[in-house]
Amino acid sequence: MKMTIGRFLIMRLQQMGIAHVFGVPGDFNLQLLEQFHEVEGIEFVGNCNELNASYAADGYARMNGVGALLTTYGVGDLSAVCGIAGACAEHVPVVFISGTPPLYAMEGRLRVHHSLAEGNFDNVRNCLKEFTVAFTRLTPYNAVEELDRTLLACWREKQPVYIQVPSNITYLEIDVPEHRLSLALPASDPERLESAAQRIAAMLAKAAHPVLLVDMDADRSAITSGLAALVKKCQMPYASFRTGKALLSEADPRFLGVFNGKASKPEVGEAVGHSDCLIATAPCYLEASPMVVPDGLPVESDVYIRGFSVTVQSEVYEGVTASELIARLLELVPPRTAATRPVVKPAALPAAIAGAALTHARLWPRMERFFRKNDIVIAENGTSAIAMTDVRLPEGASYIVQNIWGSIGYTLPALLGAQMAQPKRRSVLFIGDGSLQLTVQELSTILREKLKPIIFLINNSGYTIERYILGMHAKYNEIADWQYTKLPGVFAPDAKVLVASAGTEDELESVLAQADKADTACFIELRLDAFDAPQGLKSFGPVVAEMDYGPRGPQRKM
Amino acid sequence: MKMTIGRFLIMRLQQMGIAHVFGVPGDFNLQLLEQFHEVEGIEFVGNCNELNASYAADGYARMNGVGALLTTYGVGDLSAVCGIAGACAEHVPVVFISGTPPLYAMEGRLRVHHSLAEGNFDNVRNCLKEFTVAFTRLTPYNAVEELDRTLLACWREKQPVYIQVPSNITYLEIDVPEHRLSLALPASDPERLESAAQRIAAMLAKAAHPVLLVDMDADRSAITSGLAALVKKCQMPYASFRTGKALLSEADPRFLGVFNGKASKPEVGEAVGHSDCLIATAPCYLEASPMVVPDGLPVESDVYIRGFSVTVQSEVYEGVTASELIARLLELVPPRTAATRPVVKPAALPAAIAGAALTHARLWPRMERFFRKNDIVIAENGTSAIAMTDVRLPEGASYIVQNIWGSIGYTLPALLGAQMAQPKRRSVLFIGDGSLQLTVQELSTILREKLKPIIFLINNSGYTIERYILGMHAKYNEIADWQYTKLPGVFAPDAKVLVASAGTEDELESVLAQADKADTACFIELRLDAFDAPQGLKSFGPVVAEMDYGPRGPQRKM
Repeated sequence: MKMTIGRFLIMRLQQMGIAHVFGVPGDFNLQLLEQFHEVEGIEFVGNCNELNASYAADGYARMNGVGALLTTYGVGDLSAVCGIAGACAEHVPVVFISGTPPLYAMEGRLRVHHSLAEGNFDNVRNCLKEFTVAFTRLTPYNAVEELDRTLLACWREKQPVYIQVPSNITYLEIDVPEHRLSLALPASDPERLESAAQRIAAMLAKAAHPVLLVDMDADRSAITSGLAALVKKCQMPYASFRTGKALLSEADPRFLGVFNGKASKPEVGEAVGHSDCLIATAPCYLEASPMVVPDGLPVESDVYIRGFSVTVQSEVYEGVTASELIARLLELVPPRTAATRPVVKPAALPAAIAGAALTHARLWPRMERFFRKNDIVIAENGTSAIAMTDVRLPEGASYIVQNIWGSIGYTLPALLGAQMAQPKRRSVLFIGDGSLQLTVQELSTILREKLKPIIFLINNSGYTIERYILGMHAKYNEIADWQYTKLPGVFAPDAKVLVASAGTEDELESVLAQADKADTACFIELRLDAFDAPQGLKSFGPVVAEMDYGPRGPQRKM
Repeated sequence: MKMTIGRFLIMRLQQMGIAHVFGVPGDFNLQLLEQFHEVEGIEFVGNCNELNASYAADGYARMNGVGALLTTYGVGDLSAVCGIAGACAEHVPVVFISGTPPLYAMEGRLRVHHSLAEGNFDNVRNCLKEFTVAFTRLTPYNAVEELDRTLLACWREKQPVYIQVPSNITYLEIDVPEHRLSLALPASDPERLESAAQRIAAMLAKAAHPVLLVDMDADRSAITSGLAALVKKCQMPYASFRTGKALLSEADPRFLGVFNGKASKPEVGEAVGHSDCLIATAPCYLEASPMVVPDGLPVESDVYIRGFSVTVQSEVYEGVTASELIARLLELVPPRTAATRPVVKPAALPAAIAGAALTHARLWPRMERFFRKNDIVIAENGTSAIAMTDVRLPEGASYIVQNIWGSIGYTLPALLGAQMAQPKRRSVLFIGDGSLQLTVQELSTILREKLKPIIFLINNSGYTIERYILGMHAKYNEIADWQYTKLPGVFAPDAKVLVASAGTEDELESVLAQADKADTACFIELRLDAFDAPQGLKSFGPVVAEMDYGPRGPQRKM
């Protein structure tokens, strides 16, 4: 059938399940925006800038399965590259569409605006190539095959792809196939699948202390529900990486806690370290980092499950699709009825003390009790992410953190994306003042879209995570002191927003009570001392300094 | 002599004339920040995010001769790449320093945070390589040679360079040379210089209508004062490109106006087109663009002056340094006493009409009379830059526009950099609401640094430049309607700022009178109709649409 290239692109995005495309208009993509506007069921969400748009597309993809970003060539593409690299690092499938100069201008190497004006149209593509699993430049004679190839790479490999769409071809009609884009994952090689499953099942059957270690790829490979069934059938305890937090229930008695290398709670480190059958889903160890160091892991005997392969005791089985492997394992493993541990119910907290300055020691245990089933909890890098590590989330909760790439400011736009994907779930964000300043304008888009998240701004007057690494009292770790609570009124004067600020324990109780029953967006400043920090951060900082600066570094003089 | 690598880097930056380094702290650069802090005469200016920092470094470089940017690896580098690409496109020398993971981690390909955690440390460098003229990764055994090589490339070629500094080596001591970094430009080949100068001088002597066409490289090659002397001695009329605006005086009777291709004023297009000796300083034509199309230019007979070569009637003279060429030309050319045109004094404006809605037709002629000698005038891409094209600036004024790269949001951080470089000059910025939203938080840094610019926010409720290209009434060209005048109070509650808003002709007169005598920063919202635009923009839009979308594009349906 005949269809314009623009319409074909949009149809394919819809077939992947994309209903919102984030981005910023520019002359090279306006003609695509016209076509988005004409199609029901897909919406362009304009962001304040492209970096924010890329973070929003990432947050959307994490909650929707896949996301999309639309920019204009050069200026837009390169403003978004940090967010795309983050999606690449964290295995988040984002379709990055760039409206480029017209094809004749690129083929003729003309000097155009939004380029270096020297006829080079390879440089932007070369840059994005480093952080995507596939990239293409559409033409009228390759659009069908290239688009399908690229989109399938994104879907299967769960990483971003980059698609250049020249501005002068999107209204050209081409022949497009009748069939939908097939999202089914490739089937496994039967012998490899059966051999691997049998071997793992045998290991599980004879193991005294099997443990499952869950990381983000369990989500990307769509095996979290299969794994939940497996741990139930085998009565297998499990831990998660920080990047895999809450993919399996944290309210389950079999949940051990978050495995955080040397910084793990003793019972978690011990259970993982002493397992005689450790099954891990493509764990992402950060080696040169105090966050996760795989000390004492019985690596030799591990089962490592990746999307399309599995390693069992050092033998790699290629061509084994994770979801098929888990399904087969579920058939093979005998049920166990081992005694399970009781769910650890958090102890009652001491009552809030009126007038007592709010502390991290108080805040985070209190927040654990604030969360509800099915909340989407988002923690910004730094203080919030470190504090949240050991906070248990309720049943059905999702957790978003950008722990590997670690770009501060990521979470505010990511919240926008996550809520657009799942508007009926409550979203709760924790973000520091230093991080908020990077991407603050996206609060405007959140309120313009009439979303109702609860945003906790942790105001500790600067980069407290950096302070604990180096420069405790240095000027470079200080930032301007904004009147944060006025921001919603500036960005959306007509929006109904619960705005509050709390600096004491009783004020916290009061704002939490209000937020808990609010049917509006909430923007809540929590004022904490610049030098207060969660215990995890206090121990994290000096270890990072030693790793980063070595034995002649300035941390030795502090 | 012995010196730490960090101190050597700082010393070299100071020898280049850098007194301010823009950026954002991160664990991989804190040890460098400590060393910056220890040295007198150089200051780290913390920005709200890295893109803004890169724009600030660019603005600083334009007013200071060279600028510097400091980020942390990966997240910082890739957030700044759009600004670095802009500096590359516009020939702005920025030293981009990245604090990277420790050397052992990169050499050992360890999985670290702020990377893709797969051991690849080439990707970020490969990306920046596309937009810099030199790049390096310092080690204790290459630091002296690599640093000097890279910094000299930046200085001579007037484009950005990228320097990776591993976090664990900056406190190591190395042997460094006693001599300063020599900033002298390479001397010309004597024969080539003399031949070229003689030939050009002969052309000038017999030309009836010589014209000089000035573009940005005249500034980058440090020949503006030489050119000013030359046009005076030869009584030669001159025009500038938009990117070379105000490099030579616009208050001089020999100044023809801005050459803007087909969109030039008739007298400018005619003078340039009919010159029998057109001398141009490395003009940057935007070919596939209605902005500058070199229609009717006598390209065959041109003299093209670049930094280190000159083309005379199609013969390229390599190894000719521009400043030496101009100096020699000044000796060779005979003085002329041709009748000069009188300075065009702008006619008196009709009096402001009380209550009459402010229009672009009124605004820009009025602003022409607002500027003072030596102002730094900065115009954001879009409406402001197009409107400013034909506004004549007073003697000594400087003009900043990012016309080639055209990244909206550039100017607010660039203003910060420009004012830090030249704090005693008055800076006047024009920025649209759509552009402001991209980089708004840098207003916080401007006020924190106690600068006193005059910022005119052109509030026309969205992307008016895009509206004139496509989507005049489309939702995607609308943006959230902020309470802009509250921004200074949010970002700097204690700062003294003149905040005002004007929507009528008399209100404009009132705020201009206040701003003219204010000794504080001024933040002035000018409310204009969403569909009003300077005449240049109204004709620009449809031409861009035709170029971008071709003969089946949606602009044909409008």
